[in-house]
Amino acid sequence: MTTPNRQIQLAGIPTDKLRPEHFSLAQAAMPQAAEGELLLRIRLISLDAANRAWMQGATYRSALQAGQVMAGGAIAEVMESKAAGFAQGDLVFADTGWQEYAALPAARVQKVARREPLTHLLSVYGVAGLTAYFGLLRVGRPKAGDTVVVSAAAGSVGAFVGQIAKIKGCRVVGIAGGADKCAWLKDELGFDAAIDYKAGNLSGALKEAAPAGIDVYFDNVGGDILEACLFRMNQGGRIACCGAVSQYDGAPPRHGPRGVPGLIVTKRLTMQGFILYDFADERQQALDELEGWVRAGKLKVPEDVIDGLENTPAALIGLLAGENRGKRMVRVTGV
Amino acid sequence: MTTPNRQIQLAGIPTDKLRPEHFSLAQAAMPQAAEGELLLRIRLISLDAANRAWMQGATYRSALQAGQVMAGGAIAEVMESKAAGFAQGDLVFADTGWQEYAALPAARVQKVARREPLTHLLSVYGVAGLTAYFGLLRVGRPKAGDTVVVSAAAGSVGAFVGQIAKIKGCRVVGIAGGADKCAWLKDELGFDAAIDYKAGNLSGALKEAAPAGIDVYFDNVGGDILEACLFRMNQGGRIACCGAVSQYDGAPPRHGPRGVPGLIVTKRLTMQGFILYDFADERQQALDELEGWVRAGKLKVPEDVIDGLENTPAALIGLLAGENRGKRMVRVTGV
Repeated sequence: MTTPNRQIQLAGIPTDKLRPEHFSLAQAAMPQAAEGELLLRIRLISLDAANRAWMQGATYRSALQAGQVMAGGAIAEVMESKAAGFAQGDLVFADTGWQEYAALPAARVQKVARREPLTHLLSVYGVAGLTAYFGLLRVGRPKAGDTVVVSAAAGSVGAFVGQIAKIKGCRVVGIAGGADKCAWLKDELGFDAAIDYKAGNLSGALKEAAPAGIDVYFDNVGGDILEACLFRMNQGGRIACCGAVSQYDGAPPRHGPRGVPGLIVTKRLTMQGFILYDFADERQQALDELEGWVRAGKLKVPEDVIDGLENTPAALIGLLAGENRGKRMVRVTGV
Repeated sequence: MTTPNRQIQLAGIPTDKLRPEHFSLAQAAMPQAAEGELLLRIRLISLDAANRAWMQGATYRSALQAGQVMAGGAIAEVMESKAAGFAQGDLVFADTGWQEYAALPAARVQKVARREPLTHLLSVYGVAGLTAYFGLLRVGRPKAGDTVVVSAAAGSVGAFVGQIAKIKGCRVVGIAGGADKCAWLKDELGFDAAIDYKAGNLSGALKEAAPAGIDVYFDNVGGDILEACLFRMNQGGRIACCGAVSQYDGAPPRHGPRGVPGLIVTKRLTMQGFILYDFADERQQALDELEGWVRAGKLKVPEDVIDGLENTPAALIGLLAGENRGKRMVRVTGV
């Protein structure tokens, strides 16, 4: 009898909101590692707004198609290696898809050093932490005393962005949805101010929270929040464009924010997109610095771990609705 | 009897298109230079889309008010100096306003070396040439073989941007209004391709003219043309935001271009605003290099000189409608 491989397939491509019926749970045969490949047991699946963006069309990867295993990054353990440089028990990060087992070419897999707890490999030492680190420090380039604003501030990346900006001596304002999240940003993560965008009057709240204007805006959301921040930017300000989560779950927006390019010209702003792979050379140095801050108690690591592969679709839908605080992931149990 | 000083005043602030009745011709008393000031005779008035932008609100300078002398940069000659470092006969560039004479503090005046023809001090050796030079080379950062697209390509800045990009070994595509201008860009200035945006199907024309995508877009216009270029940018592309002339002459636009910030994220684009003063340290080196290209016959200097202070309003209105090829200026005669 072969061991079955449970997997979540993408049943259809959403044209508006993502819903549970866009996914289906299936059982496939246990995959086999060919020469040059690794057989992987998936331990922790990363949930990201990018999962939804991949359904909208080609981004930095090609668009997802209905019928395929839902794509997604994960921490996995090597069960069997038919590739040089990998051994049974090694930990890797790879786009394994949402399933229990996968066989992948070694070239599509990144070995990661084991760290405890394992969940940190998807949060502070994973894409979230490194994206915050490079996006803020290399793209946003804050100086001590600058005002840094971050949207989706309670999310996996935003929670690190704000804390790293505090470590660098900045005034930090987080934008998040709901009074509870805002209180958490201030009380738990040490933000100087937090704005509940659902409370309305974002522009007035920004003026109050950032009276000296904004020097660095770390944009995770796009849309109206980006527009409001553009109007409060200081001369020479930097906008790190990390994502546009406000625009992933629905039809693509018909317009961009007012003030582009007028305010970019008159205020000499820089808006810059980036992805992590642009900074591969500095990865180890960044991990060392992040680990130093975590060990010194300067950087808290909020995580939101959900058990069970079958709960992955609901976990993503909830993430897009802003349920999570910190890095959301699914622990694949029973394998 | 005192010599009168003819001047063009801003009679009203336009809320839509700029029209002749927004200006009035007046006669004022001859100004007097106080201690620390210079009495200037104005020779050549620069006409720029920025003149119109200043009427819309505060930019990098405060907004213009009805009743004041219309603001504008000019090349002027020192008639009398009450300031150290300036002597009668010196040439300066200053925001003198649209008039025959002005008395200004020396701190608000920039001495310029005399070069012939004098008109070159407003074109290739003035704001237009230097803006093209720094915006393209420092913000756009093209490499040989890159595809560079420039809008308002037959305008004062665009005509230099395209030629400098050719000197640097790029494929150059100009966007301009009308078949005549497009032919002129190719035949006279050596552009590889030119697109008449008034002919429609800009997106298709861009695809044809820039089959390998756009690496650098030098944006003088904003609006629909910026949007079309955003969708054709290559990974890691740079957009130098120099102006938004499509948006100056009318009410401020209600929306920005689609694709912001989505395409900025997925293509890792950089959009950057700049003004000349950011590069003051490199000014002399830039002038030397521009002069070398002009003398070697590599850089043509298109100019559009109109005689008579009284024609300045019509000259600006015409510039906003796209009448000019190359740098438009008014020669102040009879003084």
